Amino acid sequence: MISEKLKPLMANNSAIRTMFEEGDRMRAELGAENVYDFSLGNPNVPVPSEAKQALRDLIEEDSPDLHGYMSNAGFPDVRETVARHINKEHGTSFSAKNILMTVGAAGGMNVALKTILNAGEEVIIFAPYFLEYNWYVDNFDGKVVQAATDRKNFQPDLADLEKKIGEKTRVVLINSPNNPTGAVYSEETIRGISEILDRKQKELGRTIFILADEPYRELAYDGIKVPYITRYYDNTIVSYSFSKSLSVPGERIGYLVIPDELEDSELVIDAAGNANRIMGFVNAPSLQQKMIARCIDAKADIGYYDRNRQTLYKCLKECGFECIRPEGAFYLFVKSPVADENGFCKAAKKYNIIMVPGSAFAGPGYVRLAYCVSYETILASEKGFRKLAAEYR
Amino acid sequence: MISEKLKPLMANNSAIRTMFEEGDRMRAELGAENVYDFSLGNPNVPVPSEAKQALRDLIEEDSPDLHGYMSNAGFPDVRETVARHINKEHGTSFSAKNILMTVGAAGGMNVALKTILNAGEEVIIFAPYFLEYNWYVDNFDGKVVQAATDRKNFQPDLADLEKKIGEKTRVVLINSPNNPTGAVYSEETIRGISEILDRKQKELGRTIFILADEPYRELAYDGIKVPYITRYYDNTIVSYSFSKSLSVPGERIGYLVIPDELEDSELVIDAAGNANRIMGFVNAPSLQQKMIARCIDAKADIGYYDRNRQTLYKCLKECGFECIRPEGAFYLFVKSPVADENGFCKAAKKYNIIMVPGSAFAGPGYVRLAYCVSYETILASEKGFRKLAAEYR
Repeated sequence: MISEKLKPLMANNSAIRTMFEEGDRMRAELGAENVYDFSLGNPNVPVPSEAKQALRDLIEEDSPDLHGYMSNAGFPDVRETVARHINKEHGTSFSAKNILMTVGAAGGMNVALKTILNAGEEVIIFAPYFLEYNWYVDNFDGKVVQAATDRKNFQPDLADLEKKIGEKTRVVLINSPNNPTGAVYSEETIRGISEILDRKQKELGRTIFILADEPYRELAYDGIKVPYITRYYDNTIVSYSFSKSLSVPGERIGYLVIPDELEDSELVIDAAGNANRIMGFVNAPSLQQKMIARCIDAKADIGYYDRNRQTLYKCLKECGFECIRPEGAFYLFVKSPVADENGFCKAAKKYNIIMVPGSAFAGPGYVRLAYCVSYETILASEKGFRKLAAEYR
Repeated sequence: MISEKLKPLMANNSAIRTMFEEGDRMRAELGAENVYDFSLGNPNVPVPSEAKQALRDLIEEDSPDLHGYMSNAGFPDVRETVARHINKEHGTSFSAKNILMTVGAAGGMNVALKTILNAGEEVIIFAPYFLEYNWYVDNFDGKVVQAATDRKNFQPDLADLEKKIGEKTRVVLINSPNNPTGAVYSEETIRGISEILDRKQKELGRTIFILADEPYRELAYDGIKVPYITRYYDNTIVSYSFSKSLSVPGERIGYLVIPDELEDSELVIDAAGNANRIMGFVNAPSLQQKMIARCIDAKADIGYYDRNRQTLYKCLKECGFECIRPEGAFYLFVKSPVADENGFCKAAKKYNIIMVPGSAFAGPGYVRLAYCVSYETILASEKGFRKLAAEYR
């Protein structure tokens, strides 16, 4: 009874569900505190008090437009506030018109792809990556082309990128800080990508967009800078979400940035607003728009993730596991000691540790650990990791 | 630079924009209180106090899951509350699993179509209708087939429906109370449609769904009953929104109902939840979900619309205009005294009255008046309508 396009998704979906169900079974059997579930990338630090206060104030003030329709692109003052915030943080010069408020970054990615992608055109994505992108691209009958990353640091392999660009390339998708590797793409990488794309656009006589998925932008550690890609490449659309920065993933609030420098910028901005409407989003939720405008400088406690990161990374290295020290997001991507990482995941379950096979991110031979768990879980899991390591020595 | 699929939308869009811009120009020139703008279907009565209190309470209580992720289908307790409410109102027997929380009805319609519609399949819609449906269907490469309504009462023409059903029919879209006509489809109509579809399903050996878009369900007057379609036809999906019933159109909160009686119900429910995710909605906004669960019995002041309806209808009839007495929604669909309703709309502007040509709803020869305006606007516009009528006598 379901559409042909959803059938492969449903098949794929049952594999993921099996994994979750096994986690639930383990929790029921062993008690939740004895299961070290590193499978879910859900923020677990509290919502900052500024965001809570903003909501409280908004509801008390009860302005007439609080729950009402606005332009499909969002409240003009909210868009202006977002633009100014980005300008302050990144030295850009956006104004309200460059900002489109969206139903989270997933909504923003779909709106962006609806706006610029034609059936049969290609979207290049650096593997490993968040496989859900496949479905976003499929929504518009596009085709995903994988490009390689350097396994030493998970930075994009620029030579491979260049090889993959062709007559059908429309978008290069960049996700930094990266899910699942935790890599933050360096300024050198972004410059390299930009230089290749500038050249290829001229060579091929066609526009190639960078679509930057940045839900983890604020989750960067050790003082590292995450380059703001619009400063390096004109045809860049940025998709941002407040899900992680404010720990409000259920609220579905984010935005797209469409710079003036982008080709036919005005038309693209206008089309994206209309895409937002006809895809059924209509507009980002009004209360959440007003909330983020009032606490745009607030951040959830990133230090909590950082402590988890350092503790878990140290433990894994002491155990002899191979992994890069992640610079952002809340993931560790660990090399499986055996080629088939599914076996490694299965072995880990003996010690009540749940990890996701890298194949679920087009990164076979690795496993993903999401360290957005309690610090106590990290500490309690260490014994298990040591026993797991001993098995492979 | 924009996708081929969006190009016709952008062309169409500029016509609507021109109309709005003219309204703005008139307001700037004449003062907002002297322009009688009946073009916008936006709820204008206050949010009921129960909804405001629910939000206030939720923010004070600050439960840990208030802003967090939940299953793509929504919070289980919210879905259960919605199911029970429908059961109480309509004598159905839904449970949580039959309810999928959505980003408004526009989101719900898109999720439903993604779930059941294949490229090239047909969606039958009774004209006149909300033309945005065309884009929803186009999102999934479906084709809209128009069926006629009886111009005496705007009830579906069942003989024409039967003629329009063929080998490619997948969905019959029903919108009652109707935008733009204000008609509420009678029980006889719904029985008639169901009987035809039951027969055609057998004849053609294929499943045909009813997709019921019901954002105006609560806006029915004179004590009239709006039949709950799942009670008449098994393969029905209902899309509901709280935008009008609670006057919260900016908050994007609604739901889909997928009954157990629907073919392959479990699979369709599961697929719809996944469609919700991969289309970028992910889930309906969490705070709004919890809000509607706490004030599910609340209703915005429908009496306000009713007074507007009666006053404007009486005025129009006294002027000699031809229109049905609308039983629901907040629209009057008035026959233009001349074949080209654009000329009629133009003439109305002389009296500072803004109406939308019926062609914008696949109903040429008519104009739509949205009476979700202030009562004062209705009263102040009467002189203009009389002068307008005099021109055509």
